Amino acid sequence: MDLEETCIESKSVYQGGFLHVHCDSVLLPDGQSAVREYITHPGAVAVLALLDNGNLIMERQFRYPPQCEFIEIPAGKIDLNEEVLATGQRELLEETGYVASEWIYLTTSWACIGYSDERIYYFLARGLTLQKQALDNGEFLEVFELPLAEAIEMIHRGKINDSKSIVGLFWLEKYLRDWKV
Amino acid sequence: MDLEETCIESKSVYQGGFLHVHCDSVLLPDGQSAVREYITHPGAVAVLALLDNGNLIMERQFRYPPQCEFIEIPAGKIDLNEEVLATGQRELLEETGYVASEWIYLTTSWACIGYSDERIYYFLARGLTLQKQALDNGEFLEVFELPLAEAIEMIHRGKINDSKSIVGLFWLEKYLRDWKV
Repeated sequence: MDLEETCIESKSVYQGGFLHVHCDSVLLPDGQSAVREYITHPGAVAVLALLDNGNLIMERQFRYPPQCEFIEIPAGKIDLNEEVLATGQRELLEETGYVASEWIYLTTSWACIGYSDERIYYFLARGLTLQKQALDNGEFLEVFELPLAEAIEMIHRGKINDSKSIVGLFWLEKYLRDWKV
Repeated sequence: MDLEETCIESKSVYQGGFLHVHCDSVLLPDGQSAVREYITHPGAVAVLALLDNGNLIMERQFRYPPQCEFIEIPAGKIDLNEEVLATGQRELLEETGYVASEWIYLTTSWACIGYSDERIYYFLARGLTLQKQALDNGEFLEVFELPLAEAIEMIHRGKINDSKSIVGLFWLEKYLRDWKV
C-alpha cells in the first residue's frame, strides 16, 4: 500500500525568531489534495549524564508553552552546521557545567511527527568532571543529581512527564540492563 | 530558586487550519524580558490496544513533516469539548476498526515542551472486537499486529522512532511487568 504524500506547493507562512511555519499543498495517495501545516526545526540533542556515583545530572526548568516547571534531562537545539556530538557537549557544559570523557550515542527519536520535523539525538555521557555552568541569556534552570531508579519511579508517578526525558530515561535503563554490547 | 516566566503581552501571529502560533513577551525571573514563540494544541490521545492473543494493534503511516513512514500506536487529536476517553475510543475505532471493553488510563506526557502545549494521554485498551475502520478524509494508514516484545526490539533497532509510540510502548512494558496493581 502506497502511503506517500507528495508536495504540490510549499509556502512559508510564519518566520519568527525561532519558529518557522510552513503550509503545503500535497497530493494524497488517492490522487486528491490536502493541506499540511508544520514547523521546521534544526533538531536537538539530549544527554543522559551519568556520574561515577550512579546519579544522573537532571534539571528543573520552567517551560513557558505548558506554563509549568519540568524535571528534565539536559538538552538543547543544534546550532547551524554543528555536529550533534558537539551540540551535546556544548549544551551539557553550558547548562550543567559538566564535561564528559566518554560519549555514547544511544538513539534518535522524532519529537512530534504530526506537525514538526524535529529529531532528538540521545547520548550517554560518562566520566563527568564539573567545570563552570554558562547559561544562555534568558535561560534559568536548577541542576541536581538523581539516581536512575528514582527517575524511573518519578516517570511512574507522573513527576517526570516530558516526552524527551521519558524516552531518554527509559532507553538508558534498557541500555544499562539489556542492550549494552 | 524562582524559575517562573510571566506573560507581559501575548500575540497570535499565525492561525492556520490546524496550527495556532503565538508570540509572547515575557518577564524573566531576573526582571529582564524575552520573547517566547509557541503553538497551542488541543491535546491528543494514544492507545495501547492489546489483543487477547498478546499482540498490539499498530499502524504504518506516512507523516508529511518528517517526510517518511512511521510505525506508530493509534492516536489522534482531541475534538472540541471531547473527553479524553471518548477521543481514545473514537480514534481507535476510526483508525483501526476496533472497539475495546476495557480502558485503563496509563499516563500523560507533554509532547514538545520547548514550543508546544500539547499533552498526550495514554490508555491501555483490552477486550478488543473488530468492527469497521472509518478513516478521516485524507487519512491513509495500514493496520497490523505486533507482539510487544517485538515492538520493544524495534525501538532498540530504531525502527519505531516516534516519541509518542516509544513512550507508550515502554510504559506498557513497565505496566504489565512492574507497575500493575
